[in-house]
Amino acid sequence: MTGPIVVINPNSNQAVTDGLDRALASFRLTGGPAIECVTLTEGPFGIESQLHSDQVVLPLVDLIARRSDAAAFIIACYSDPGIDACRSVSPVPVFGIQESGLLTALSRADRIGIVAIAEASEKRHRLYMRRMGVSSRIAGERALNMTVDETARGTGTFTRLQEVGRALISDGAEALVLGCAGMAVHRAPLEQVLGIPVIDPTQAAVSMAMGTVLANQI
Amino acid sequence: MTGPIVVINPNSNQAVTDGLDRALASFRLTGGPAIECVTLTEGPFGIESQLHSDQVVLPLVDLIARRSDAAAFIIACYSDPGIDACRSVSPVPVFGIQESGLLTALSRADRIGIVAIAEASEKRHRLYMRRMGVSSRIAGERALNMTVDETARGTGTFTRLQEVGRALISDGAEALVLGCAGMAVHRAPLEQVLGIPVIDPTQAAVSMAMGTVLANQI
Amino acid sequence: MTGPIVVINPNSNQAVTDGLDRALASFRLTGGPAIECVTLTEGPFGIESQLHSDQVVLPLVDLIARRSDAAAFIIACYSDPGIDACRSVSPVPVFGIQESGLLTALSRADRIGIVAIAEASEKRHRLYMRRMGVSSRIAGERALNMTVDETARGTGTFTRLQEVGRALISDGAEALVLGCAGMAVHRAPLEQVLGIPVIDPTQAAVSMAMGTVLANQI
Amino acid sequence: MTGPIVVINPNSNQAVTDGLDRALASFRLTGGPAIECVTLTEGPFGIESQLHSDQVVLPLVDLIARRSDAAAFIIACYSDPGIDACRSVSPVPVFGIQESGLLTALSRADRIGIVAIAEASEKRHRLYMRRMGVSSRIAGERALNMTVDETARGTGTFTRLQEVGRALISDGAEALVLGCAGMAVHRAPLEQVLGIPVIDPTQAAVSMAMGTVLANQI
Amino acid sequence: MTGPIVVINPNSNQAVTDGLDRALASFRLTGGPAIECVTLTEGPFGIESQLHSDQVVLPLVDLIARRSDAAAFIIACYSDPGIDACRSVSPVPVFGIQESGLLTALSRADRIGIVAIAEASEKRHRLYMRRMGVSSRIAGERALNMTVDETARGTGTFTRLQEVGRALISDGAEALVLGCAGMAVHRAPLEQVLGIPVIDPTQAAVSMAMGTVLANQI
Amino acid sequence: MTGPIVVINPNSNQAVTDGLDRALASFRLTGGPAIECVTLTEGPFGIESQLHSDQVVLPLVDLIARRSDAAAFIIACYSDPGIDACRSVSPVPVFGIQESGLLTALSRADRIGIVAIAEASEKRHRLYMRRMGVSSRIAGERALNMTVDETARGTGTFTRLQEVGRALISDGAEALVLGCAGMAVHRAPLEQVLGIPVIDPTQAAVSMAMGTVLANQI
Repeated sequence: MTGPIVVINPNSNQAVTDGLDRALASFRLTGGPAIECVTLTEGPFGIESQLHSDQVVLPLVDLIARRSDAAAFIIACYSDPGIDACRSVSPVPVFGIQESGLLTALSRADRIGIVAIAEASEKRHRLYMRRMGVSSRIAGERALNMTVDETARGTGTFTRLQEVGRALISDGAEALVLGCAGMAVHRAPLEQVLGIPVIDPTQAAVSMAMGTVLANQI
Repeated sequence: MTGPIVVINPNSNQAVTDGLDRALASFRLTGGPAIECVTLTEGPFGIESQLHSDQVVLPLVDLIARRSDAAAFIIACYSDPGIDACRSVSPVPVFGIQESGLLTALSRADRIGIVAIAEASEKRHRLYMRRMGVSSRIAGERALNMTVDETARGTGTFTRLQEVGRALISDGAEALVLGCAGMAVHRAPLEQVLGIPVIDPTQAAVSMAMGTVLANQI
Repeated sequence: MTGPIVVINPNSNQAVTDGLDRALASFRLTGGPAIECVTLTEGPFGIESQLHSDQVVLPLVDLIARRSDAAAFIIACYSDPGIDACRSVSPVPVFGIQESGLLTALSRADRIGIVAIAEASEKRHRLYMRRMGVSSRIAGERALNMTVDETARGTGTFTRLQEVGRALISDGAEALVLGCAGMAVHRAPLEQVLGIPVIDPTQAAVSMAMGTVLANQI
Repeated sequence: MTGPIVVINPNSNQAVTDGLDRALASFRLTGGPAIECVTLTEGPFGIESQLHSDQVVLPLVDLIARRSDAAAFIIACYSDPGIDACRSVSPVPVFGIQESGLLTALSRADRIGIVAIAEASEKRHRLYMRRMGVSSRIAGERALNMTVDETARGTGTFTRLQEVGRALISDGAEALVLGCAGMAVHRAPLEQVLGIPVIDPTQAAVSMAMGTVLANQI
Repeated sequence: MTGPIVVINPNSNQAVTDGLDRALASFRLTGGPAIECVTLTEGPFGIESQLHSDQVVLPLVDLIARRSDAAAFIIACYSDPGIDACRSVSPVPVFGIQESGLLTALSRADRIGIVAIAEASEKRHRLYMRRMGVSSRIAGERALNMTVDETARGTGTFTRLQEVGRALISDGAEALVLGCAGMAVHRAPLEQVLGIPVIDPTQAAVSMAMGTVLANQI
Repeated sequence: MTGPIVVINPNSNQAVTDGLDRALASFRLTGGPAIECVTLTEGPFGIESQLHSDQVVLPLVDLIARRSDAAAFIIACYSDPGIDACRSVSPVPVFGIQESGLLTALSRADRIGIVAIAEASEKRHRLYMRRMGVSSRIAGERALNMTVDETARGTGTFTRLQEVGRALISDGAEALVLGCAGMAVHRAPLEQVLGIPVIDPTQAAVSMAMGTVLANQI
C-alpha cells in the first residue's frame, strides 16, 4: 500500500495547517492516497523574509528523513523554502507550491498574474520564476500588503483580493495564482467574481502529487 | 454532481482509446470525477502529420459542444490538435497532453527530454514548446522512429524506449515525457530502468483535470 | 515560364479580395511574376475568431492542391490560418502575412508595434510571435476595436489608426505593422503622418514571394 | 519617378560588384526600380576582419550623402558594416544583407543555418544575431574557411558548400543563408542538391527594398 | 613592472578627461597599477550621436597601437565606441564602461536602471544590452535630457538625477548605472539620497581592469 | 577609515582559507582596503552537495552580524551559499564568487566556459546562471571530477585543467571561470597555456569589492 502525501506547513502556525487541511478535504478520495498536513514545529510563526525561508531548510530536511513512509512531500509555503535540499535527500517526489501553482496556471492560460501577500516577497518570487525559465508567461505580481495572519482572518481580505486581481487582469493576466498557502478559501469565490481561473497552489501541488502516486498504481 | 473528465482520443483507432482507458484505471476513485475515454470517430486512424492534426480540429470542437456534461476535456494526442479552438468554445477547462506532460515534467526535474514516435513530429513539437515559453528547460527530443501502431503492439518498443531514453539522458535530460498517448504501459518499467522520472502525458493531463474538478468541490 | 504568386483571401468577402488586388497593383511588373488574388469561397465572411481561423485550414489546403501552377502562395489573413498545414503540402513557398509583415518590419526598425483590428486577436498574435521567437522586438499591440467590415469602409478608420499608432509609438514602437489584410490604402498616409515606417503585411509577403521567384530566374 | 536601389559593395574588389550585378539581373523589371551596384572605392580589397568592417563606416556614410537620388540603400557585405551609422543619416531605408538574409530565411523555415566564409567572422555574426533577438531560431553557423577571393573563383567552392550545408542540416538547419555577398551563383544549385531553401542575402535585401519602393507607388 | 591602466576619453573635451581623473583618484594605490587618463584629441567635443561614436573608432585603434606600454585600456564613453575593433587589435584587455558598469551593477542588485544623458542614445544602449544578453535584468532606461556639457557644470544636474533615479526605482530598478563618463561626482550623493547602489561606469571598469592587473601579479 | 573586505571561506578547511589568502596577496595595496580571509568554523570540511550548501547559510548570517566592521563581504564558495540571506541582513555589499566570476568573465569574452570540480554541482550552477539571466552567454560547464581536497594538492590537477579547458574551448568558450575557490594558483599558467582569459572567481569578487570601497572614498 502506498504511503500518504505529506503536506508540510513550514511555519509553526497550526491555524495555517488546519486551513490547508480543510482546503484539501475534497482531494481525499477512497482508494486514493492519504493526505496528511503537518506543522513544522521548528519553523517561525510565519515565513515573511528571506531569513525565515532559510531557517526552515534543515528542519524540513530532518522531517523528510523521519517520514520515510511518505509517497510524496509538499512544501506548503509559497517561497518553496528548502526545495533543492529536500529534493536532494528525498527518495520520493517533493513538490513546491510556487512551482506547482505556476505550472498548473500555465495549463489554464497564457499569461499569469500572482497575488502575493507582501511586496517584500516579490523579488524572491521573480528570481525563482526566472530560474524556472517561465518569465515570458508572467503578466505581473502584485501584493495584498497584508500579513499572513491578517489574510487568514481579515474580513477585508476578499475585497483586497478582488482589487489586486483586477489590477493583474489589466496587466494582462489571464489566470491568477494565489501566492500563499493560506488563501484557498477565497479561490472559488474569486474565480467566480473575476471570471478567470484562480489557482490555489497547495491544491495544485497535491494534484500533481496524486498524479505521481496514481501513475505508480497502474 | 460534477460531470466526467472526458478524455478524447482524436484518432479513430479504438485500440488506442482502450489503452488510454487502462492507463487511467487507477485514477478512477470513489468520490472522484468519472473519467471517460472516447474515440473521435471522424479522426484518421493515426495522427502522424500536420494535416492529420488539422483534420481533427472541427470534429473536436463538435464533440466538445455535444458533451456539455463534461467537467473537463483532455485532448489525448501529443500534438495537442485543436487546443486553441477547443478552448475558445469550451465552458470547462481543456487540457492538451503535450502541454500537461511537459508542465508536469517541469515539476519533477530541471531539464526534460521528449521521446517522440517519429522524427516528423519533432518540428511541430519544437514550435509548440517555443510558443509555451519553456524551451530553456528542454534537453532534447528524440524519436523512436516507429509508427503509432508499431509502438502499440511491437515487442521491440521497450528496448527502443530504453535506447532513446539513454540518449536523452546523455543530452542532459533529468526527466522524460513519453511523446505519445499510447505508451503508458511502458512508463513505470522505463522509469525503473532509467532511474529518472518518466511522465505519461495523458496521466499528467488527467491529474491536472482532477485537480480542477476537486478544487471546485471545496 | 514561372507561375503566378497566388494571394489567397481566406474569407469569402470579395470586397476584401478586391482591396488586396488594388494594394498590389504596383507590384505587377513586366517580366515579373503575375500576382493573382483569389477568394476562398468556403471561408467565413470575416475571420474574427479562433474558430474562423481553424475553419479555413482544410479549404486552404484544397485550394493549394488545385493551384499546382502557382510559384508561391500567400495566405492573406493576419492570423496566418493554416500556415503549417499549407506548408506541409505545398511544393512551393507559402507565406503568411503576419510572419512576413513582422519580419519585414524587423528590417526597418528595432521595436515593432502592431495595429490589430480587434482586441480578441491580440492573444492569438502574441502566441504566434512567441513561437516565432521575436518577442524581444515587439513594443506592443493595440486594437482599433472595429470589425473588418467597418475598417474597410469606415471614414473614421484613419483617425483611429492615428490614435492607435501614436499610442504604440509611446509604447516604444519604431515601426508599425497593419495587423489586417485590408488596410493597405491607409499605409502611406499613416506613415506620412506618424513619421515612422508602416508595413502593409500583404505587400510585405508579396515582396518576399517575388524575391523567391526572381532568385530562381538567375 | 523613383530613384534607384543602390547596392553598395563596401570592398574595393570590382569583380565582387560585377558578381552582385549579375546576381540581381532578374530583379530588374520594366516599371520597377532601377538597381545599381556600386563599389566603395575607399574600402579594403576584402572585408575579412573587424577592423576592415570599421574602416568602411565613414566612407559608406559619405557615399550615402552623395547619392541623394537613391530610393533605398543596400550594404552588400555580410557583416552589415556601418548599418547603424548609415541609418542614422539616410533619409531612405538602408538594408544590411545579414539582417535581410536572416529575416528572409525565417520566412522559409524554422531553424536557420549560416554558411560563413571564414571562422573568424562567426563571433561577429553571433553577436549581431543576438542583438537582432533571433538566436532561438539559429541552428548553427559553419565556415567554408576560404578567402572571399577563393570562393569567387575557386572550383572547389561548390563541393565545400555542399559539405558545410550538410553539416548544418545535421545541426538542425531547415534553410540556409549564404553568409557572403559573392556566392549567389551557387544559390540555386545548392538548393537543388540539398533540398532545403538557400537564401542569397543580397537578393533577399533587394527584394525587401523593392517592396519598400513599390509600396510607395500605390 | 606592469604598465598603466589607460583610460581613454574618446571626446576631445579636456574637462571631461580631468573629471575622469578626479573620479579615479582613490583608485591610485601604492603598489597598484598607475591609472592614466588621456584625451582622444581626434574625437568630437562630445559623443552625442551614432556618427560621433563611429568617428572615433579608428583613432581609438591608433591610440591603442601607440600605447604598447598599457596593461589595460578603458574606453570611457558610455556608448563603448570601437569596443570590438579595439579588442581585435589590443594585446591587453579592453573594457567598455557601458559593459563594465552594467556587469558591476548586476553584482549589486537584480534589476538595473540606467540614467542616460539624452533620449537619443536609448536605442543604441538597448541594442547593446540585448547583444550582451542581459535584457531580462534591465528595469529601464531614462534620460536626463541634458547635453554632456550641461551635466558637467549644470547646478540642476543633481536635482534632475534624483527625479530620473526615482522614476527608475518606480520602474523596478534596484541599482542604477550612471550612463555617462562624466557624472562620478554625483555618484555617492545620489546613492545616499536614493538608498540603492549607484554605479559610476568608469570606476566600475577601472576596478575590473585593476583585478586583471593584480591577478597577473600573484 | 574604511573596514576590511572580509573573505569568508564557508568550509572549515583552513588550508583552503590559507590558499585564498595567498591568491589575494597582490590585491593588498597600501592605502587600499584590508583583505581578511576567515574560516567559517561551523562549515563542513568541504561543500560538495546541496545540503552542505544549505548548512552554512545561518552560520554565514551570524558571522556577517558579528563583523560589523567589514566594508564588504565575499562568500568564497562557488555555490554562492547563503547569498540571498546574507544580502538581506548585511548593511554592506555581499559578493558571491560564482556571480562575480561569471560577470567578470563576461567583460572579457562573449561565451564563457566553467570548470567545475565535480559533476554533481553542474545542475546547481545551471539553475543559478538561469536565475542570473546570463545563460545565452554560457558555452558550457565541465567537471574535473576531483574532490576539492584532491584539487588542492593533486599534482594531476593542472593536467586535468588543461584537458577540461580545451574541451570547453571546443564547446565555444572564449574565456574560462574556475568554478572553485581553491584553484587560483593555476589561473595564470592555465591562461598562458590555453591562450584565453581564465578568471579566478575570488579574485574577481575582491576586485569588485575593492571598486565599491574605493568609489566611496572619492
